[in-house]
Amino acid sequence: MKSDPGLSSNAAPSASQVSNSATSRHPSGDMRFGPDLMARLDALAAFTEVEGQLTRRYLTPAHIEAKCKVAAWMAEAGMSVRTDPLLSVFGRYEGHNPGAPAIMLGSHIDTVVDAGLYDGNLGVLAAIAVVEELARRGERLGHAIEVAAFGEEEGSRFPTHILTSSALIGAMAPELLDVRDSDGVSVREALLAAGGDPDAYRDCIRNKGKIAAFLELHIEQGPLLQEQGAALAAVTAINGSVRSAVKVTGFAGHAGTVPMTSRRDALTAASEMVLAVERMGASDPDLVATVGRIAALPGAQNVIPGRVTFTVDMRSRSDAVRDRADAALKFALQDIARRRGVTVEVDTYQRNAAIALAPQVIDAVDEAIATCGQRPIRLSSGAGHDAMIMARHCPSGMIFLRCEDGISHNPAETITVGDADLGVRALLEAVRLLDRRLAA
Amino acid sequence: MKSDPGLSSNAAPSASQVSNSATSRHPSGDMRFGPDLMARLDALAAFTEVEGQLTRRYLTPAHIEAKCKVAAWMAEAGMSVRTDPLLSVFGRYEGHNPGAPAIMLGSHIDTVVDAGLYDGNLGVLAAIAVVEELARRGERLGHAIEVAAFGEEEGSRFPTHILTSSALIGAMAPELLDVRDSDGVSVREALLAAGGDPDAYRDCIRNKGKIAAFLELHIEQGPLLQEQGAALAAVTAINGSVRSAVKVTGFAGHAGTVPMTSRRDALTAASEMVLAVERMGASDPDLVATVGRIAALPGAQNVIPGRVTFTVDMRSRSDAVRDRADAALKFALQDIARRRGVTVEVDTYQRNAAIALAPQVIDAVDEAIATCGQRPIRLSSGAGHDAMIMARHCPSGMIFLRCEDGISHNPAETITVGDADLGVRALLEAVRLLDRRLAA
Repeated sequence: MKSDPGLSSNAAPSASQVSNSATSRHPSGDMRFGPDLMARLDALAAFTEVEGQLTRRYLTPAHIEAKCKVAAWMAEAGMSVRTDPLLSVFGRYEGHNPGAPAIMLGSHIDTVVDAGLYDGNLGVLAAIAVVEELARRGERLGHAIEVAAFGEEEGSRFPTHILTSSALIGAMAPELLDVRDSDGVSVREALLAAGGDPDAYRDCIRNKGKIAAFLELHIEQGPLLQEQGAALAAVTAINGSVRSAVKVTGFAGHAGTVPMTSRRDALTAASEMVLAVERMGASDPDLVATVGRIAALPGAQNVIPGRVTFTVDMRSRSDAVRDRADAALKFALQDIARRRGVTVEVDTYQRNAAIALAPQVIDAVDEAIATCGQRPIRLSSGAGHDAMIMARHCPSGMIFLRCEDGISHNPAETITVGDADLGVRALLEAVRLLDRRLAA
Repeated sequence: MKSDPGLSSNAAPSASQVSNSATSRHPSGDMRFGPDLMARLDALAAFTEVEGQLTRRYLTPAHIEAKCKVAAWMAEAGMSVRTDPLLSVFGRYEGHNPGAPAIMLGSHIDTVVDAGLYDGNLGVLAAIAVVEELARRGERLGHAIEVAAFGEEEGSRFPTHILTSSALIGAMAPELLDVRDSDGVSVREALLAAGGDPDAYRDCIRNKGKIAAFLELHIEQGPLLQEQGAALAAVTAINGSVRSAVKVTGFAGHAGTVPMTSRRDALTAASEMVLAVERMGASDPDLVATVGRIAALPGAQNVIPGRVTFTVDMRSRSDAVRDRADAALKFALQDIARRRGVTVEVDTYQRNAAIALAPQVIDAVDEAIATCGQRPIRLSSGAGHDAMIMARHCPSGMIFLRCEDGISHNPAETITVGDADLGVRALLEAVRLLDRRLAA
């Protein structure tokens, strides 16, 4: 416990206390939070499945050990700590009145394979830094502050996605407990082995009235903040997405014996389709479209591909823009198939509407960013996040933090210590603003 | 031994003996060879690694059992049988003078995975039928006739290709004995387990003067004979090929967060390149070009591919046409890469010149086809065959036999019994012609 009972509670820092040097790309003696936060992010990266890289998938020993480390930091910061049946961990820093509704901060501590250090982890450790600062100052708010370290967001081990925050809001499909990783281990088995309690998954559910708001600090994972020369943004919405699996069927043949005019090559047809997906994505500034996965069968160097499968991932902040593009794309794919004498089947297996974040949280983040001496920027999120799930349960928001060249899901993921410092300050300011404006 | 010593040797059949009904798509009582040959092809297909399909890879138990069956048929037909150290099997039917140079017929008895019944096997069993007929008639020639059942042509088990005929001409690289299949078994280990003698591989070599000619009957594996309404063709050349591995490097990124204008997507670049390969293949009627294999990394639905690899297989009967197209393609790929801000590396790992087959063998095949009442057609072969290797050792030729829709390397591979009958007749006639024209 680092709280300093000598300081009065609820004391907001004056503007002069927010050092301008925190906006520089280099650390300075005035940076209260940046260096410690970066050191903790480095330290947490030691919990990995693979030596020499950061890979920390849900319920692996690396995840469980990282969870314990995070729990220890939460306790040190003056929080009471509990772990839920799916092994997310929550630290709670009470407000004036014990048991008051909480403002929840946080993110996830699982990672993709060969990840960067900041995706998810930044939001958890910055939230702990916020509570540390409140405790150091002896500052208690009208709301409790909870810090969540969700266990599963990335879908990097099991065919799941944002499982643990879904469990918190009561939206987890119980059959997901039985899906298996590539080694054949189910979520249920992995939970039992790690000390979780799969059958108690409904005990993860938190009463709606008990969470006043959710706020997640996260790296942008895109280049827009860097392009605009800004460190932080208030996130207005999580873009909607439509995901399809496309199957193109032509006719396999010998690469040396079938004349070009007699071919029904599934791969040349699919190549035209990939370019149609790209053109569709470029047709509206509010749209992106990606083919991330492709396979050609039989897949021999000397055989004309008879079948190709590929994925389409299309996203927009506007459901109308996205749905229009999706329909136009399907028409374009059929047209290419017809012209080339192949068939195409498009299986749209996921369609998520855009999620608007809560105006009062967006406004609080905007003001907090300005209070930190930064130009307030608003962005929508192209990626899904725990906040997307939490938004169905309580007023939710996000703060995006600039990352170099927008690189993420990659060991080259980079943020500056100055931006990290600003992230904690803005999160702290936003919490104070929300505490004043939301009913406790 | 089915020879009929009552008939005079060297008796060529009269034109009237060649039934026109053999050209029909349906069996008839006049077909001497077709039904038996089709029955044997069916029977040989029983030797398979996988129940319900024909998969017979080199040195598997299925291959060894098929080899024994073929050896038994050879012996029944009046041939002396020997197996070489790499487990190809050879049947020899002596001519007037024992030890005379041989006209070698045959093909391979290994298959691709989930193969058709005719690729390779047709040429071996038709050759046995030719010797059976000679022996039945008591007809001995100036040359011996040898039937080869090569063990490895397809490259379907080991990373090898046309290994056993290469060994026969002394062109097998000995390090190929140490390459391994997907289970980690080397050619050497598989040979020892099957009763072969890898270290005696040089004993496979046959003296040049002892093989007067090589002639291989093989299904066309392309649609040209069917399109021209012809059953058989004399093959003039094996097309040359150039094979390259292409690597496109862009930059991976999050499919939801990187705007279309900021992307360096390796897959959309590669898709343009695949279409450039197709256009190049279509730029000359003597050219085909194929991308058979493609992989995109990291290969996740929600990640922009940062790296793509694909193969290019380009073939032509004209080395000049092929080399010009290859150079133009490389220029086109670099141009696409430059325009899209990605890099492309093209590794050309194989370049085979077109192989001209021997004029005297082509002429003999032409005349033999005409003698069978068929219109003589000449084609070049888009695929590689044992004859391509043998052509470096002795005058070599091929007869192509029509297959339905050009489908091959596929269980749907189909030939008619009438065409099978014609194939044996033409092979027999060509052998008689070559015997008269070549020095024994």
